[in-house]
Amino acid sequence: MPNAPIPALDELAKLHPADVADRLQRLPHAEAGALLHQLPDVTAAAALAEVEREKLPELLADFSIAQLARLFQQLPPDDAVDLLQHLPARRRREVLTALPPERAAEFKSLLRHPEDTAGGIMDNRFIALRDQMTVEAARELLRARAEQERREDVAYLYVTDEQERLVGIVSLRDLVFRRAERRIGEIMNRDVKFLRATDDQEQAARQFERYHYLGLPVLDDEDRLIGVVKASDALAIARREATEDMQLMVGLSGEERALTPWPRSVKRRVPWLCVNLVTAFGAASVVGLFEDTIARWTLLAVFMPIVAGMGGNAGAQTLTVIIRDLALGELSPGDGRRALVKEVTVGVMNGLIIGVIVGFAGFAWKGDPWLGLIIGCAMLLNLAAAGLSGVLVPYGLKACKVDPALASSIFVTTITDVAGFFFFLGLGALTLRWLA
Amino acid sequence: MPNAPIPALDELAKLHPADVADRLQRLPHAEAGALLHQLPDVTAAAALAEVEREKLPELLADFSIAQLARLFQQLPPDDAVDLLQHLPARRRREVLTALPPERAAEFKSLLRHPEDTAGGIMDNRFIALRDQMTVEAARELLRARAEQERREDVAYLYVTDEQERLVGIVSLRDLVFRRAERRIGEIMNRDVKFLRATDDQEQAARQFERYHYLGLPVLDDEDRLIGVVKASDALAIARREATEDMQLMVGLSGEERALTPWPRSVKRRVPWLCVNLVTAFGAASVVGLFEDTIARWTLLAVFMPIVAGMGGNAGAQTLTVIIRDLALGELSPGDGRRALVKEVTVGVMNGLIIGVIVGFAGFAWKGDPWLGLIIGCAMLLNLAAAGLSGVLVPYGLKACKVDPALASSIFVTTITDVAGFFFFLGLGALTLRWLA
Repeated sequence: MPNAPIPALDELAKLHPADVADRLQRLPHAEAGALLHQLPDVTAAAALAEVEREKLPELLADFSIAQLARLFQQLPPDDAVDLLQHLPARRRREVLTALPPERAAEFKSLLRHPEDTAGGIMDNRFIALRDQMTVEAARELLRARAEQERREDVAYLYVTDEQERLVGIVSLRDLVFRRAERRIGEIMNRDVKFLRATDDQEQAARQFERYHYLGLPVLDDEDRLIGVVKASDALAIARREATEDMQLMVGLSGEERALTPWPRSVKRRVPWLCVNLVTAFGAASVVGLFEDTIARWTLLAVFMPIVAGMGGNAGAQTLTVIIRDLALGELSPGDGRRALVKEVTVGVMNGLIIGVIVGFAGFAWKGDPWLGLIIGCAMLLNLAAAGLSGVLVPYGLKACKVDPALASSIFVTTITDVAGFFFFLGLGALTLRWLA
Repeated sequence: MPNAPIPALDELAKLHPADVADRLQRLPHAEAGALLHQLPDVTAAAALAEVEREKLPELLADFSIAQLARLFQQLPPDDAVDLLQHLPARRRREVLTALPPERAAEFKSLLRHPEDTAGGIMDNRFIALRDQMTVEAARELLRARAEQERREDVAYLYVTDEQERLVGIVSLRDLVFRRAERRIGEIMNRDVKFLRATDDQEQAARQFERYHYLGLPVLDDEDRLIGVVKASDALAIARREATEDMQLMVGLSGEERALTPWPRSVKRRVPWLCVNLVTAFGAASVVGLFEDTIARWTLLAVFMPIVAGMGGNAGAQTLTVIIRDLALGELSPGDGRRALVKEVTVGVMNGLIIGVIVGFAGFAWKGDPWLGLIIGCAMLLNLAAAGLSGVLVPYGLKACKVDPALASSIFVTTITDVAGFFFFLGLGALTLRWLA
């Protein structure tokens, strides 16, 4: 097709921006770029704000500085700043220079907040009332603002003092049904939950889950109201963060998707596979210590996958629970020790149960009571090691100021492999010596 | 202490229910029960609605039928029904019988919706307007309803026709600033996004993430408005489901937490460890096929952990991406084949890269070129198998109508173990025969 048909363009402009973004994402890059250029600025800008983060850099690369400046002016400041953050530093500066000075200043003040904080996700547009205002005056203010800007949905209005410090909150519903002459100060709720601009975005998501609010105000260090975070924005974050941990655990980047083009996937996965290779050689060298033992008692090699497999899975169970609770903030600082005691206890108990089963199974399969005893004991020790490492690895990563999920599965598996082979083959070597 | 101090009770009653629930959860069971009984009904009921699902059954068990009926009447119907669902079937029936008939009927109609659907999480209280109403009349209705019941935050009002079918939506903001004599029909938005009562709750969460709404209406099969879901409720679900998948993958229940008492953890983890044991014996029996080969060439046993470790991690990478995208609904039905092709391609490319590295490393370590060649080739084949099984296992589970995450990591690891050992030891056996 030389040109995308114009009626389709009309259709697109009528859709929700998220749906336009969805269509764009399904097109090959060149077609998506061409389509974006044909859409009205306001539609193109809104769609870009909804495009998956991973596809943004290449779509944004198609636009000139002047075009970007024009598009970003069509967006709510928080969305514009989100897009700005996906531009290379030099282009970002150029776009800021190309914008009207007051717009640039607004964007710059938002850009000061790190992307993963409440300040980084907040909307800086909110309606602030004063406590001396009447309900009628507040309604008037809302009416004026509604005509002036196309705003997203609001559920609450905030009350600030002369220093712009937050002193109360009024729900829109109260504004509708309270008598017109009442003072805002009389009807506002003074017990307001809020976020600090520096709060982690995960923390923000947790507050929404806990208190079921539709929006939360964001304060700076001097208690001044500087923005608002909506529940639905926190939702997107909660989902992204929760699934990011799953991916980090096995050495994937948080942005990888099933249909990410394969060269990009290979580029991102190979480094962690190489780390895993180094650790696997570590496990292999433990086996290497017992080469003579295996040469004399080959059956031990047959049982090695059972030691490794069970230890790996038990370790992954502990690790997953710990990562989850750390990520969702359900573990208080003092809880680490309790979790460690609990997981080692679980490891020992599971080890006793599985050790007895595997011991008898080994004996039944190969008819060698010594083998059964050795594999049973090794299993007990290995599952205890799995519980220990499943707690210590994420806490250790956290202590090193690294995301506790990062490649943690690789490290835990290595520890259970090394410990498992050492116990199993070591017990085998001792038995051989003792029987000799 | 014979009795909890009364001032503390006063303090508790002033806190947000989520904070009361938090304190309860940190107490030993007996103390939490005693405290609940001392709290005013409305505080106790609200706190129970916020308690972690896992702790509910034992806390609810402390109450008589009459007490439960009294407590549940203090709650919004959706919260009451959520608690009812955590009672054993017999007690649930008894509580329903003890309730006033109209309350019981309301709860029963909500109980008809499965817990994990939009109908199961919706609030059945909403304000429905008619399109012929004036803005003033709508404000009056809102005022009357606000006095009648202590409602949660509202952001939208819904407009229905005579058959209670949803025809439009009005934001509270519009109600504030539109002129009093305007008709609702003139100011309402007719293009309404909605949920079906039968929609999966994950689906509901996705809609919120996509469109950033504060609330979504829920319709029955005949387009009648029957309830509303709030963004913050969807948030709790999105988090729970996303982390549940992480846990299911390694054979944990979705409810397990780091501080779940150890006997319960053991009871839940042992069954899947047993499944893993059976599959590990499967992998071991593949090794058993090559016992003679290992007896003649012990070095092969030393390299086995590298084959297993790398295959397991590569499989986990593919699996994690697929589970994530399936859970978040980012894979359309036709995308399975594309994902398969992509992941096998990634497996082959990673296999070539890692295969060459591991081949040279193996040669360098043990000085045996044949060993390097064998381990390199086995690695290539095993990583391709990892890509294949990482896609086929979750899709296979899904085809069997099982959660694609369920114990998928155990199955994928088994496949990579079996395939890896077969390729590696098989190539070793062939080489021995050929060199002989």
